[in-house]
Amino acid sequence: MTAKRQGLQTVVFAQSPRIIGSATIAGPKEGESNLGPYIDKLVPDPLMNGLTPEKAERKLLYQACQDALARAKLKEKDIHLFIGGDLLNQIVSSSFCARDLGIPFLGIYGACSSIVEGLGLGALMVDGQYADTTLVATSSHYHASERQFRNPIELNLQHRSTNQWTVTGAAAAIVGGHGQGPRITRATFGRVIDYGIKSPNDMGAAMAPAATDTLYRHFLDTDTSPGDYDLILTGDLGSIGQKLFSHLVKESGYTLGAKHMDIGASMYKPHQRAGAGGSGCACSALGILGYVLKEMCQGKYRRILAIATGALFSPLSYQQGDNITSIAHAIVIEP
Amino acid sequence: MTAKRQGLQTVVFAQSPRIIGSATIAGPKEGESNLGPYIDKLVPDPLMNGLTPEKAERKLLYQACQDALARAKLKEKDIHLFIGGDLLNQIVSSSFCARDLGIPFLGIYGACSSIVEGLGLGALMVDGQYADTTLVATSSHYHASERQFRNPIELNLQHRSTNQWTVTGAAAAIVGGHGQGPRITRATFGRVIDYGIKSPNDMGAAMAPAATDTLYRHFLDTDTSPGDYDLILTGDLGSIGQKLFSHLVKESGYTLGAKHMDIGASMYKPHQRAGAGGSGCACSALGILGYVLKEMCQGKYRRILAIATGALFSPLSYQQGDNITSIAHAIVIEP
Repeated sequence: MTAKRQGLQTVVFAQSPRIIGSATIAGPKEGESNLGPYIDKLVPDPLMNGLTPEKAERKLLYQACQDALARAKLKEKDIHLFIGGDLLNQIVSSSFCARDLGIPFLGIYGACSSIVEGLGLGALMVDGQYADTTLVATSSHYHASERQFRNPIELNLQHRSTNQWTVTGAAAAIVGGHGQGPRITRATFGRVIDYGIKSPNDMGAAMAPAATDTLYRHFLDTDTSPGDYDLILTGDLGSIGQKLFSHLVKESGYTLGAKHMDIGASMYKPHQRAGAGGSGCACSALGILGYVLKEMCQGKYRRILAIATGALFSPLSYQQGDNITSIAHAIVIEP
Repeated sequence: MTAKRQGLQTVVFAQSPRIIGSATIAGPKEGESNLGPYIDKLVPDPLMNGLTPEKAERKLLYQACQDALARAKLKEKDIHLFIGGDLLNQIVSSSFCARDLGIPFLGIYGACSSIVEGLGLGALMVDGQYADTTLVATSSHYHASERQFRNPIELNLQHRSTNQWTVTGAAAAIVGGHGQGPRITRATFGRVIDYGIKSPNDMGAAMAPAATDTLYRHFLDTDTSPGDYDLILTGDLGSIGQKLFSHLVKESGYTLGAKHMDIGASMYKPHQRAGAGGSGCACSALGILGYVLKEMCQGKYRRILAIATGALFSPLSYQQGDNITSIAHAIVIEP
C-alpha cells in the first residue's frame, strides 16, 4: 500500500490538483430547469440552426472546452492532455472535439459517469506530475441519445414514468497544479455492479446499487461518514433510482438524509415532463461543474462527495439478453 | 515541466512498472497466421460453440484476463484497477468483463490503439504509486466488428483490397511495481489527426499520419532516433497504411528501414485472404503482448517502441460526411 492509496479503491491527491477553470453550456430545456441559473451559456435551439443532433452535441462540447480554456486564461498548447468521453458510439463527440483542439487525447468511456472518471484521472495526472494541466470534458444530447439507445424522437413513442431525459449540454474543466479554484482531494474508482435490471427504461434502478457500492467503499476506505461531507451528490439516479439508493444506503448502515442530492431527480421542473429526471453525461457534469462549483465559491459547501453513475450497456447487449450493469466513480471536492 | 515529463507529449516512468504477467488468446485464422506460434491459447471455433460474436469476444477477453492473472500468480483481489476498452459500442466487452472480474474499472476508448492507451495508463498508475498492480486488456472479433462497422458477414459482400481483417482475439497484461518482466519506461500519448480520408474501407491510410505524428513527437520529446530502438512496431496500418507511413516518416526526416514492422501487414499469410492485413484492438495487443514480449524474453530485442493506432469514427459519423480521424499512442518496452 502506497501513501497515495487509501483502502481498496481510493486514491489520495496530496498535491491538491485544482479546477482552475470550468464552463457549462446547455439547451433551452435545461435553461428552464432548476439548474438553469447555474449554467454559463444557453443555446436557444438544441440543433443549433439545423445541425444533426450528433454534430450539435460536438459543437456544444467544443464550445465548453473553449470557454473553460478562456476562464483559465490558457490556450490549447498549454494543456498536456485532453481527457474526454461521451455516450455516442465510439465516443465520436469527444474524438472529433480532440481533433479540433489538437491536444493529446485520452478517450474514456464510463457512460454518464464519464465526468468523474475524467476528473479523477485528470487530477491523478496532475497530482503525479505527469501533466501540468489537463482538460476534462463530456457532453450528451437528448436527440442523439434517444435515437441511438432507444427510438428516434420523431416516432413520438410514449415515455414511461421510469424513463429519464438525456440532458442536452456539455461541461469542461481545466485541472491544474497551479492557480486558484476548488481542489480535488480524493477519487474512488468503482466496480461494475449487476443488480439484475433488464429494462433500458429503468436505468436509475440499475445505477443505484453501483452508487451505493462506491459510496460504501469510499466511506470504508477513507474512514469517513456522511457527517464529514456537506453534500453527497449523485449524478443521474432520477426519482426512481434515488429511492432505491436511499434504501440500499440505509441497508449498508448509513443515513444521508438532507445531505443527499441527486442532480437528475432535482433538475427538471414537474411541468417539464422529464419522466424520472435527467440523465446523460451532461447531467452529472452540469451538476458538478455548474451547481457544485458555483455554490462552493459562494461558501455554501466546504466538502462535497460527488458520485457519478453510468449504466454500462448497449442496445445490442440488451437485445441479447444481458442485464443493464452499472458503475459509479466518486471524487471529493474542497475549496 | 516536471521530471516525469519529457517534451510536449511524453511521460517518463522512473519507477519502471513491469509487465509481470500476460496472456494472449485468438481464433483459428489467427492460429494459422504468422503470429500463431506466439499466441498462448487458440480456440478452434471463433463463435465458441454457438455464442453470438459479441458474447464470444467477451469470453475471449475474460479468458485472457484469467490467464494473465494466473501467469502473475495473482487473484482479482490483488489488482487495484482494471483498465479495458474494445471496439464494440459502449465497450460492452470490457464492461461486462469488468463485472465478472469484480475489479474497479476504468473504461477507455482508443479504438485499435486501446492496448497502448491502457498499458500507458496502467504503467502511469503504478509508477505514480496510485496502484500496486493494474490489469490491462482488450479484445476484438471479426464477426462482431464487421456487422457493427460495415456489413454482417452473412451478406458475403466482396472485400476490397484496402479492407483490413479484424483480428479475433484478446490479450491481457498485469502491470505491477514488483516482480519480474519487461519494463514500460515511457509513454507518448497522441493527438487526433485528420488526413482527410473518407473511406471506412481504407483505415490504414487514415491511421498512418497519426502513427507518424506520434513517432515524430516521441523522437523529438525523448531526443532519440530510430537507431535507439531495436524494433519500431506499428499496430495495424496494414499493407496500404504502412507504405504511406514509410513515406510520411521519410518526409519528416527519419528512415526506419528494417527496424519497422507492422503487425497488421505481417500477420496473415497471403493465402489467408485478409485484404490489406489485420486490424482491431486484438491486432496490436497480440503483436505487443504475444510477439514482442516473447521475442524480448528470448533476447532478440532490447528496446522497442510500440505504436498502436486507432481510427476514431463511427458508422454514423461517416454517414454524416465526417472524415475518418485517427490517433496513435506509443510506449517504450525494455527488458
